[in-house]
This record gives sequence, C-alpha cells and structure tokens, in this order.
Amino acid sequence: MTKLASTSPRRGPKPNLHTRDNLMLAGLRMFHTTGYTATGIKDIVNAADVPKGSFYNHFESKEVFGKEVVDFYFSNALPDIKNILEAKESNPIDRLRNYFESRMDCVRENGYSRGCLMGNFSLEVADHSELIRESIAEHFQTWKSLIESCISDAKAKGHIKNQIESPQLAEFILNSWEGALLRMRADKNEKPFDDFMNVIFNLVLA
Amino acid sequence: MTKLASTSPRRGPKPNLHTRDNLMLAGLRMFHTTGYTATGIKDIVNAADVPKGSFYNHFESKEVFGKEVVDFYFSNALPDIKNILEAKESNPIDRLRNYFESRMDCVRENGYSRGCLMGNFSLEVADHSELIRESIAEHFQTWKSLIESCISDAKAKGHIKNQIESPQLAEFILNSWEGALLRMRADKNEKPFDDFMNVIFNLVLA
Repeated sequence: MTKLASTSPRRGPKPNLHTRDNLMLAGLRMFHTTGYTATGIKDIVNAADVPKGSFYNHFESKEVFGKEVVDFYFSNALPDIKNILEAKESNPIDRLRNYFESRMDCVRENGYSRGCLMGNFSLEVADHSELIRESIAEHFQTWKSLIESCISDAKAKGHIKNQIESPQLAEFILNSWEGALLRMRADKNEKPFDDFMNVIFNLVLA
Repeated sequence: MTKLASTSPRRGPKPNLHTRDNLMLAGLRMFHTTGYTATGIKDIVNAADVPKGSFYNHFESKEVFGKEVVDFYFSNALPDIKNILEAKESNPIDRLRNYFESRMDCVRENGYSRGCLMGNFSLEVADHSELIRESIAEHFQTWKSLIESCISDAKAKGHIKNQIESPQLAEFILNSWEGALLRMRADKNEKPFDDFMNVIFNLVLA
C-alpha cells in the first residue's frame, strides 16, 4: 500500500492521469460490450495497456471503478442529450422525436447490441452494489428531467392534451425506451423501436 | 468420457433425471439471483448437491444449459400467464390489468430485485449466445401473442378505440413492461409500475 501510494497521481499527475483515463476508456468499452461480471480487472489493465499494479493506484475496488465508469458514460452522453432536447428553437415534440431517432442511429450502427450501459448495469449489477445502483438511479433522474422539460413545454403549447402529468409521462417514456432497447437486444431488429415511436408519438404524447 | 457415458440417463433414468432436475432448479435460482456470468458450473453443481462430474452427463455446455434453463423458466411461467390472460369470462382489459398486478406481487415480494430472467438474459447473454438469444426471442413472441389476444378481444368489443393494430400494441406493452421492471431494479421502488399502469390503461389501451 505504501509503495503504491508513493506513485499516486498527486506526486506525478501527468502520466498517472493518462493511466486513469486509459483505464476508464478500456473499462467503459469492455463493460459495455462484454458486461460487468465478465470483465476482470486484469482484462481492463491489459486492454488499457498500463502497468498491472496501476489499477489500485486509481481505484479502491472494481465496484468503485464501475461506479466511476457509469458516471463517465452518463456525463459523456449528457451534452448530446441536452443539445437535442434543449434546442428551444424547435417544437418540443420534434425535439423528443429527434432525440430517440439519434439514439437509434447508434443502436443500428452497433447491430442492436450493447444497449444502454445504465440499463445493462440496472439488470446485472444494481441488485449487488448499492454504490452503483444509487449512481444509476441519479442519472436516470437527470435524464428523465430533460425529457420532462420537453413534455411540459409541449403541454404549455397545447400540443399534448391528455391529463397525465409531465413527470409521469417522462418516466414512462424513459422506461419504455429502455424496454425497447432490451427487446432489440433479444430480437436483433428494430421493430421494437418502430412500435415505441408509433405508440409514444401517436398515443402517449397526444 | 466413456466412464461418464456409462452412467447416462438412458441406462439408469431415475437417479439421473433427479440429478438433471436438481441442476435445472439450482441453475434457475442462481442465474436469476446472481446472473449468468457470475454463476459457474461448479456453483451450480454444489448448489444442486450432485456429483461434480454429473453436469456434462446432462448438458453439453454452460450455454446449452443456459438455454434449457430459460426454456424451463418460461414453460413454468406459461400456465399462470394463460390462466389470467385467457380467462374469457372476464373483460379483456381487466385480464391484462390482473396479469400485470399479479406479476407485480412477485416483484414486490422479491424487493424489486431479480426481475425477469428473459429480460436479464437479453441484456447479459443475447449478444454473446445465438442459441440463448433465439430461445428468448421465441418466448417473447409466445408471450406477446397472449397479450395480443386480449387486445384483439378488447378491440372487437369496442373497449379500445385507437387505430394502432393489436400486434403493435402488444409488443409495445410487453417491451414497456420489461422497461418498468428494469427501472424498478435501479430505483428499488414501484413508481415505474404505477407509471406503467397509469399510461398503459389510460392512454395506450383507450
């Protein structure tokens, strides 16, 4: 421990921060394609091409690393989500439609594989790590708020006439999106997306 | 191999079938609570309390075993699904409501953990095993058909007025249900279920 501490990022920040970034990028890629349990620390260290002992210089445990990777994943996604959903010059319903269509471009590119890391961790890790679960729950909340703003905007403009409140509609849409992603992983086609778009934009946001 | 073959179920069916059942039950329990990757064959053999070598007498590989466990899971669930959804004496919308409420009783009992094994395998295993993926996709199809029958029935009775076809509505509802289960795993409360019931029964099946 003492020996490891002497190479901590505070004493030689540049190379160590680089190592940390490489670990995060490798971890994100591997957790997303292979899964949390199937990816060992040794695999991550090898993929990041960093010295074997360096992992514990930066992260206390695989669990802490997993939480940091989920945070990193969501903070990377956030600018794109905001860019589309907060584009106030467009009609709020169009913003929502654009957002899901842009996500679908990604899903299609990945051959209906990988899905959403937060969804994956919800099923694979959340029952077993309170630390990671709390982090995912918080990010879902932030994501939902951005969808909710569009819906409130559309309600204020009279584009949505139903009586269900914006927060409930936003939660429902977010969860249904995760469900559509899940089903695309099983079926390997985009029918779940077509059904999602059809029902959400013709019945739920009407 | 020869030695193992001499104890194959064909030569002494009773004890070996019992072993097979124990392996399936232990596998189902462990895959459902711990996950596919996190559960090793050794863990299953230990939990089933059967001789170490017996696994490969019954199953060619962990993958084949995983497929059999998913099939076993769905065939076990099917009578309950049919019992509720095919109870023709009740209103078809009520049948659907009863069905999701009965599933929710289970989810609540399990503390919003474990979820649906088919959903879990869709995210954890489907990208990596075509054998298991195809099996899940087929079961989703059967499940969806049972939901679709209720919806067609409700449409024929004039209880659903919207123009979206029954198969699309059924697919959407099934996928949204999986999404609600996923979010309950992350949030550990039943708000996703409340939102699901609210939107599905007030907007989608209207």
